[in-house]
Amino acid sequence: MREAQKMLPTLPFRKVAILGAGNGGRALAASLRMQGQPVTLWNRNWNHLQELRATGKIQLTGALEGVAEDIETTDNISVAVRDADLVMLVTTADAHRLVIEAAAPFLAADACIFLQPGRTGGAFEIRKVLNVLLPGHRIDICESQSLIFACRATSACEVRVIGIKECVPVAALPYSRTSEIVPRLRCLMPGMREAESLLHTSFENIGAIFHPAIVLFNAAAIERGEQFFFYQDISPLVSDFLLELDQERIKLGRCYGINLKSIFEWIVAAYPESSGDTLRERFRGNPAYHDITSPTQLHSRLLTEDLPTGLVPMVAFGELVGLEMPLMRSLVNIGSSLLKRDFWAEGRNLQSMDLQGLNVQDIIRAAS
Amino acid sequence: MREAQKMLPTLPFRKVAILGAGNGGRALAASLRMQGQPVTLWNRNWNHLQELRATGKIQLTGALEGVAEDIETTDNISVAVRDADLVMLVTTADAHRLVIEAAAPFLAADACIFLQPGRTGGAFEIRKVLNVLLPGHRIDICESQSLIFACRATSACEVRVIGIKECVPVAALPYSRTSEIVPRLRCLMPGMREAESLLHTSFENIGAIFHPAIVLFNAAAIERGEQFFFYQDISPLVSDFLLELDQERIKLGRCYGINLKSIFEWIVAAYPESSGDTLRERFRGNPAYHDITSPTQLHSRLLTEDLPTGLVPMVAFGELVGLEMPLMRSLVNIGSSLLKRDFWAEGRNLQSMDLQGLNVQDIIRAAS
Repeated sequence: MREAQKMLPTLPFRKVAILGAGNGGRALAASLRMQGQPVTLWNRNWNHLQELRATGKIQLTGALEGVAEDIETTDNISVAVRDADLVMLVTTADAHRLVIEAAAPFLAADACIFLQPGRTGGAFEIRKVLNVLLPGHRIDICESQSLIFACRATSACEVRVIGIKECVPVAALPYSRTSEIVPRLRCLMPGMREAESLLHTSFENIGAIFHPAIVLFNAAAIERGEQFFFYQDISPLVSDFLLELDQERIKLGRCYGINLKSIFEWIVAAYPESSGDTLRERFRGNPAYHDITSPTQLHSRLLTEDLPTGLVPMVAFGELVGLEMPLMRSLVNIGSSLLKRDFWAEGRNLQSMDLQGLNVQDIIRAAS
Repeated sequence: MREAQKMLPTLPFRKVAILGAGNGGRALAASLRMQGQPVTLWNRNWNHLQELRATGKIQLTGALEGVAEDIETTDNISVAVRDADLVMLVTTADAHRLVIEAAAPFLAADACIFLQPGRTGGAFEIRKVLNVLLPGHRIDICESQSLIFACRATSACEVRVIGIKECVPVAALPYSRTSEIVPRLRCLMPGMREAESLLHTSFENIGAIFHPAIVLFNAAAIERGEQFFFYQDISPLVSDFLLELDQERIKLGRCYGINLKSIFEWIVAAYPESSGDTLRERFRGNPAYHDITSPTQLHSRLLTEDLPTGLVPMVAFGELVGLEMPLMRSLVNIGSSLLKRDFWAEGRNLQSMDLQGLNVQDIIRAAS
């Protein structure tokens, strides 16, 4: 701890709680700890932390190299968040609500909740949860458009950082807090940028366009145990379908005064090393997608996360402005039936985002 | 022709036109001709008839054995239907309207149009077409619930009859004509039975439940050129999905006072030689399904027929009684987008079936 203490005066946060010890949570914990930041890494599944607990060390390789030491680990959320002034949620977004409900009683008065990433409507949902559980408290909430790292754990205590994103939009709720929060985050994660609106971080949820549709068109193959490359093996009509599905998202943005990148523009910008004139060519020619294989079962976060925290809230935002979104609705209906869950009820809707009864101007005002 | 002429007094029809020279059309042409019935077989694609035209003979093997001779063939629909008192449509159902529009000017006054099978709402659609094109004429129309043969062409002039169905419901529009028409049809096709209602022949469209859903869950695999067994390789959650989808059809029947067999009850009844306690087991244990492979492309009748003449009209009937059918709607939406067609507009809807403005009692009365 000697080094960390020496750096303490320049550190932006007293203590960072990282909730979720998957690929992203581990990489973030290591990166922050290597910058001297006291870090507690929480996971609800104790087994998942066992090896890490023995050493308290995480090794990073790839775009970020080094060994982080003295990472505190716990499966007790009260221990994790107590006295933390930055609480980063790095779980799948469908767990955000549950995790915050568990953490709420133990949050410090000056805590900032950071959904990394928020998916669609994350900050709205958490705002409502905290308003109910901690009425009167003004805890800051913000969400990023994506995780700052592209990374993959290679073993329990080692994460390969494939890339560090240079421009990740972040917005707070209320939006006015953005300009205070993002500069503090940037001390530790320089790629963070102030988003023009919370609707921007919420509607630029690209995974929600890619994942459920590709999974459903491959549902039987996945269940039969056939392996394929998730992006590389995209077929022509499925690729065209994604573009048409994406039009519903683009129109949604327009209804809220936001000019969104299409998925094609997004992939060109996010992966300039990819090549090709069509989405399919970009998928096939994108080195970052090369080794991404198909899920081994239908119950994967590609449906269980992206339906309730992606397509369901997008449809909810669309409903509020009277926008028809037949393809998004259809994917949610079919995914719900296939997995025998009601993602309309489970997912982020106008009620759970506390937006019922508002009009589009109210929301634009709250979000920007 | 000698034998045929000798038998003429006992034949139920003067001349039978069979429109569509696929597996079913050829098997029917041969079967009827072997009973002495004069038969003209029409196909819009001349190449499809070339070999047959050279000999005028079709050989049947399997459940029905023999060689039919003197089958007249033509690609001129006026030649086919002129003077025919039975006109059987054995095309895919999405072609019914087009074929009848082409045939209408040449139909005999005493012609009976027989949709074999009608899929969903076939007779209603053709009734409207004829009312417009031949106002004042009272041409009989009827539809069967399925084709009477399970068969497969083994070469241009040879069809293997896998099975002859023993109980195929047939209904006429108006329903009152059923009791006159079905006995005449039974002279040639003894498996034909009087259906209790035209809604029975229309709602017991089992293919519409099986085909589009299985295709969509395999869409990417089909486009990638992967081969699988269409029914045998059904996966557990897809099989469960079919049962839930089928519930929308069962409910639809109930709204119209019809007690429909579920797809599970149907498969048990239609294929008693299959075994198993679940739909999936029945699919896998059904010898009749053993060699049915996947389509080689997405543009197949499993979508282009079953969406516009199966799920679209079922949703239309549901709409009329205020029944929600989210899964059927979703499959039509996704199939339309995937194939870049608007099956809602192309398919059988309340307008094209001439049912707009009617209530459920009107329709039950017209159909039974």
